Amino acid sequence: MYPYRHLFDFTREIFLNIGCSLEDAQLATQVLLEADLRGIDSHGVARLSGYVRLWEAGRINPNPTISTVHETPSTATVDGDGGLGLVVAPRAMEIAMQKAENVGTGWVSVRNSNHFGIAGYHAMQALQRDMIGMAMTNASPLVAPTHSTKRMLGTNPIAVAVPANEQPPFVADFATASAANGKLEILQRKNEKAPLGWIQTAQGDDTDNADELKQGGALLPLGSDLTHGSHKGYALGAIVDIFSAVLSGANYGPWVPPFVSFLAPPADPVGQGIGHFLGAMRIDAFRPADEFKQHMDNWIASFRKADVKRGEEAVLIPGDPERIMTAIRLQKGIPLLPPVEKDLAELGKKLGVKF
Amino acid sequence: MYPYRHLFDFTREIFLNIGCSLEDAQLATQVLLEADLRGIDSHGVARLSGYVRLWEAGRINPNPTISTVHETPSTATVDGDGGLGLVVAPRAMEIAMQKAENVGTGWVSVRNSNHFGIAGYHAMQALQRDMIGMAMTNASPLVAPTHSTKRMLGTNPIAVAVPANEQPPFVADFATASAANGKLEILQRKNEKAPLGWIQTAQGDDTDNADELKQGGALLPLGSDLTHGSHKGYALGAIVDIFSAVLSGANYGPWVPPFVSFLAPPADPVGQGIGHFLGAMRIDAFRPADEFKQHMDNWIASFRKADVKRGEEAVLIPGDPERIMTAIRLQKGIPLLPPVEKDLAELGKKLGVKF
Repeated sequence: MYPYRHLFDFTREIFLNIGCSLEDAQLATQVLLEADLRGIDSHGVARLSGYVRLWEAGRINPNPTISTVHETPSTATVDGDGGLGLVVAPRAMEIAMQKAENVGTGWVSVRNSNHFGIAGYHAMQALQRDMIGMAMTNASPLVAPTHSTKRMLGTNPIAVAVPANEQPPFVADFATASAANGKLEILQRKNEKAPLGWIQTAQGDDTDNADELKQGGALLPLGSDLTHGSHKGYALGAIVDIFSAVLSGANYGPWVPPFVSFLAPPADPVGQGIGHFLGAMRIDAFRPADEFKQHMDNWIASFRKADVKRGEEAVLIPGDPERIMTAIRLQKGIPLLPPVEKDLAELGKKLGVKF
Repeated sequence: MYPYRHLFDFTREIFLNIGCSLEDAQLATQVLLEADLRGIDSHGVARLSGYVRLWEAGRINPNPTISTVHETPSTATVDGDGGLGLVVAPRAMEIAMQKAENVGTGWVSVRNSNHFGIAGYHAMQALQRDMIGMAMTNASPLVAPTHSTKRMLGTNPIAVAVPANEQPPFVADFATASAANGKLEILQRKNEKAPLGWIQTAQGDDTDNADELKQGGALLPLGSDLTHGSHKGYALGAIVDIFSAVLSGANYGPWVPPFVSFLAPPADPVGQGIGHFLGAMRIDAFRPADEFKQHMDNWIASFRKADVKRGEEAVLIPGDPERIMTAIRLQKGIPLLPPVEKDLAELGKKLGVKF
C-alpha cells in the first residue's frame, strides 16, 4: 500500500523531470492519480512510464502553448500543442465552464492532445460550480463496429457528472466498448479467460481469449452483438469520435495515434493528435440550482431504495463504487501490482527520482 | 401498402378532429409518420389511436400555449402545456437552433409534454442548418437498473444527427435499453420467444418470455447484464432522464406517467408531464462547416469500407437502414399490420374520418 501523498510526490517529480512547469506537473499528477484513488488502476500511475516513453519519443510536448483557435460565446476549439492530455483537458474544461458562466453552457472540442486520464475527473470539475460536467475523448482503435473485423474506434469513454444536495453527486464514467481495455489487462495478467461478448477474433468470431487483441482481434462495442444492441455501442463510440476529433481537427477513427511509444502513429494523419470534447451546463440556466439539487436528491434516493434482486445488496448510483474506493484508498493507501512497482522503481532510477 | 400521402391526410384529419390547429395537425402528422417512413413501425401511425385516447382522457391538450419559462443565451426551459410531444418538441428544437445561431449552441429542456414520436426526427432538423442535432426524451418506466427488479427508467432514447457533404448524414437514434419495447411487441404479436438478455422476470431472472412485462418483469438496460456493461446502459438511461426531466421540472424515473390511457398517472407527481432534451451545435462554432463536412465524408467512407465479417455485406453507418427504408416506403407505400388497419378504421369511424 502506497500513501496517496507518496505517489503524488513521486509522480510530480517525474513530470517536473521531463520538463513540465511546477503548475502543470501538479495538475497532471492530480488528474492521473484520481484514477488510482477511484479504483481505475489501468488509468493511473501504472501509465506514468508510458507517458515518459512518449515524451522520450518526442510525441508529448511538456511545455505546450495551449490556445483557442476558434470560438463563439458558447463554444471553443482548443489546440493542445501536443501537450499532456492531463494538462490540456483541464484547461479546456476551464474554458467550457467560463463560457457556461457567461451564456449558460460551454462546449470545447480539443485537438492535438494526448491521453487525458479518466474522463470522470474532467466532468467532475463542474460540480463545485453547480454545473453539469461532461467529458469524452477518442483513443487509438481497438473496437470493431458491428459487422466489421477491423478496429475502427477507441474505447471512447463518456463521463457525465451531476450535482446533488445532500446526496453525493451522480458521476457516470464509462467506456463505450462492452468492456474497457483495463479489464482485459487484468485478465491477461492473471492468465484468465474473458467472458464471451467482450472480444472477437481477427475473423470476427466471439472468443474468450483475453490475448486475442494481440492476434488481430478486436473489442466489441457496448451491447456485444447486434441482437443485444452492439450497433448502439458502436454509435456511441462514433459520436464520441466525431465530437472529439472531427469537430476539433484531431485524428479520428483508425487514424488516432497509439498511446504506446513502440507503435508509430499512422503515416497519413487526418488531423493533429487525439481529440477530447468537454462540456459544462450551468444548472441555473434551466431552473434554480437549489430546486434542481433537491430533485436530484429525490432521484438518487428513489433509485437507491428500489427493490433489489436476491443476492444483491443495493441499487448503485453511478459514481458510488468510485467514491467508496476513494475514501478507502485515501485512508489505507493505494495498492500497486508488483510489475507496476518494478516499473515505477526503474522509472525513478532512470530519471533520478526516489520511488 | 398505404401511400404516405394517404396516411398523412388521414392522420392530419384526426389531429384536426381532436382540436389541433391546422399548423399543429400538419406538424404532428409529419413527425408521427416519419417513424413509419423510417421503418420504426412501433412509433408511427400505429400509435395514433393511443394519442386520441389520451386526449379523450383529458391528458393531452390539443391547443397548448408552449412557453419559455427560463432562459439564458444558450439555454431554455420550455413548458409544453400538456400538448402533443409531436408539436412541443419541434418548437423546442426551433428554440435550440435559434440559440445556436446566436451563440454557437442551444440546449432546451422541456417539461409538461407527451410522447414525441421518434427522437431522430427532432435531431435531424438541425442538419439543413449545418448544425449537429440532439434529442432525447424520458418515457414511462419499463427498464430495471442493474441489480434491481423494479422498473425505474423508460427506454429513454438518444438521437444525434451529424451533417456530411457528399455522404448522407450520420443519424444515430437508439433506445438505451438492450432492446426497445417496439421489438418486443413484434415478438408478442408473432407469439415468438425473445433472445435472452432483453428481459428479466419480476424476480430479476433472465427470461425469453416476450410477455414477461405483463407479469411484473422489466426490460434490461443496454449491455444486458453487469458483465457486459448493463451499468453503462443504466447510466445512459439515467442521464436522459435527468437532462429531460430533472433539469426541466417534468416527472422522472418511476413517476413518469404512462403513455396509455388505461393506466392512471402516478398520484404523487414530482413534476409536470414527461420531459425532453433538445440540443443544436452550429458546426462553424468549432471549425468551418465545409472543412468539417469533408472530414465527415472521409469518416463515413472509411467506416463504410472497413473489412466485414464473413456473411455480412457492409459496415453500416448509423441512419443507413432508416434512410434506405424511407426511399422504399415513399415509393412503394407503408405496410400496416391487420390489427393496426382495423384500429385505424375504427378510429376513423368514431371521429368521422374516412380511412
